Amino acid sequence: MKSKGIGTVRPQYFTFAQPPHEMKLECGKYLGPITLAYETYGELNAEKSNAILVAHAFSGDAHAAGYHEGDKNPGWWDSLIGPGKALDTQKYFVLCVNAIGGCKGSTGPSSTNPKTGKPYALDFPILTVEDIVKTQKYLIDHLGIKKLLCVIGGSMGGMQVLQWVATYPESLRCAIPIATALKHSPQQIAFDEVGRQAVMADPAWNEGNYYGKNIPEKGLAVARMIGHITYMSDKSMEEKFSRRLKDKSPDFKFGADFEVEGYLRYRGDNFVKRFDANSYLYLTKAMDHFDLSGDRLFSKGGQSDLRFLVIAFKSDWLYPSYQSQEIVRKLKTHHADATYCEINSTYGHDAFLLEVDEETRLVKHFLQKTYSDFQKR
Amino acid sequence: MKSKGIGTVRPQYFTFAQPPHEMKLECGKYLGPITLAYETYGELNAEKSNAILVAHAFSGDAHAAGYHEGDKNPGWWDSLIGPGKALDTQKYFVLCVNAIGGCKGSTGPSSTNPKTGKPYALDFPILTVEDIVKTQKYLIDHLGIKKLLCVIGGSMGGMQVLQWVATYPESLRCAIPIATALKHSPQQIAFDEVGRQAVMADPAWNEGNYYGKNIPEKGLAVARMIGHITYMSDKSMEEKFSRRLKDKSPDFKFGADFEVEGYLRYRGDNFVKRFDANSYLYLTKAMDHFDLSGDRLFSKGGQSDLRFLVIAFKSDWLYPSYQSQEIVRKLKTHHADATYCEINSTYGHDAFLLEVDEETRLVKHFLQKTYSDFQKR
Repeated sequence: MKSKGIGTVRPQYFTFAQPPHEMKLECGKYLGPITLAYETYGELNAEKSNAILVAHAFSGDAHAAGYHEGDKNPGWWDSLIGPGKALDTQKYFVLCVNAIGGCKGSTGPSSTNPKTGKPYALDFPILTVEDIVKTQKYLIDHLGIKKLLCVIGGSMGGMQVLQWVATYPESLRCAIPIATALKHSPQQIAFDEVGRQAVMADPAWNEGNYYGKNIPEKGLAVARMIGHITYMSDKSMEEKFSRRLKDKSPDFKFGADFEVEGYLRYRGDNFVKRFDANSYLYLTKAMDHFDLSGDRLFSKGGQSDLRFLVIAFKSDWLYPSYQSQEIVRKLKTHHADATYCEINSTYGHDAFLLEVDEETRLVKHFLQKTYSDFQKR
Repeated sequence: MKSKGIGTVRPQYFTFAQPPHEMKLECGKYLGPITLAYETYGELNAEKSNAILVAHAFSGDAHAAGYHEGDKNPGWWDSLIGPGKALDTQKYFVLCVNAIGGCKGSTGPSSTNPKTGKPYALDFPILTVEDIVKTQKYLIDHLGIKKLLCVIGGSMGGMQVLQWVATYPESLRCAIPIATALKHSPQQIAFDEVGRQAVMADPAWNEGNYYGKNIPEKGLAVARMIGHITYMSDKSMEEKFSRRLKDKSPDFKFGADFEVEGYLRYRGDNFVKRFDANSYLYLTKAMDHFDLSGDRLFSKGGQSDLRFLVIAFKSDWLYPSYQSQEIVRKLKTHHADATYCEINSTYGHDAFLLEVDEETRLVKHFLQKTYSDFQKR
């Protein structure tokens, strides 16, 4: 029997850190008020013990599942969230929050700076993954949830999962970091940096002051194109495009001759319509500075009953599996209860969005076991 | 005894295809006059049987070895070319020609269009690797060389080697394609395309008409930065930079915090001073359209006594070793005399410029054997 989906959902908003009670950021500066856009699926039980926080990736948003009124496509992880799915909304209360620094409803560089009445632009303070997670804790507290059943996410979402472990280990029962790393390698930093350079090379970027004017769409499109190459694998590109030529060879000498070129241009152009260039800069910097290597993952000590499911994908060369194995080694060294699974996918980094069956099998069972074990106590 | 180098060298020039005898290009258009910048090292013997053609990579030039008057650094493959070296100039006559379409002395988009008296810019016809090799054949004929002892080159140079085999199999005795492919994969095309998009996104590019004005330096720098990431390996970046921060954290929020960022910016900025943006477009397109798969490598038939040494590098993910293995499979299927060697390097694609000892061992012996075997006949 095919389970029904979640149906129509609406974003919700939570505003806090009202002046003079701004939130202190890791950089030492203060930010406030802060608005978080978030969505919830399923019902919070009476004990508030069934909440799962889904952390989105770099360009994601709070719309993880269900449909917005009038939309044709569901949220970005609808395949894993819903009745009977991996994150079963008949059992769990699932929550997804847009990261601050982004541009999908939560406070970010395109938001109005209360001190000037204009968009923050580059006056927005430098953010870290720790800051992003701190705002999520505010929301969890606001909802009266003492302990999350789970924090789960891929890529930048996986970094948030690890940051929860580092900062609020007492506030979660299990953690599922997917296709992520304790820290970016120089190669990952390099790809991010080239994307930032592409944005900043666009004269329309104008030192970040483009709101209400022409946006740096060409630079941002190039940045996104670079990203898309790194999200796919050599093999998945081969399977999707091979060397097929586009239908009509354009008159222009440097038009898109190959399908892969047309695809990248399309994805680049599309991204520009839905993403803020300054958010691109802030969020990639947050990822590049993220570093929970050394003793930092366990800086708050004792996680004796915290459980981990670490997932990586064989063809992911942006977050290669050796980085997930490093996480697992770190966990094992601290005698944590950790399971590692490397999924044999050809999709590259995108696999965390696409390998639904494998992820469902792993995540569903892991959550059920954790939930029932803790219910028994 | 440490062998002396080549010493001071000077570029030479050969101009041909004077109107009305322009050279026909693969696209059907005619180009002329064509000037080739080239350099030679060592002496051509009386039988003209000791000539080795070195084909350079995408951003290379004819200055492969020795020193230009007043220069501190030698040519780009000086470690392999010279007395006693892999391409031993005491025995062989070594020749390197700047590819047309480039910007290092040979005719390219920055050259003067005789029809207008202005730089060609985008009026320069679309080029192929076959066209580039055809100009080299003109020069070889001009020098009276009937048969090259060898054509050798890495990356785009390797494509030229393969193109020689396809177009002029009777004009060479052995071929050494290094870190190259029979055709670009969609991923390779994608990286090239993003570089082109970065160049064309720069308003200074101005549809290619920037000569004598501001050059599209920001776009070209971004393109080069992408290139540099693909030339190195994850591991070689880790060894070179790790996550070391730069000495001074700049005031600017999106300055180069990590050494790898500073390095990429430096390499990008430097490239802009020595490379023409339109050449970037023309040469990357030539590589993307290159395709000697299927039966095309042996379209001219019988290479019974042509010898091959195919070299790849383990950590090269831009031209992965499976592409070199495809070349070898193709050669073996045609019963060609082919040796394959995969060098265990961590340098990534750059290895073909850096793995001097391994390459020397392989190439020196292979050349000596080929040379002496053919001398005996």
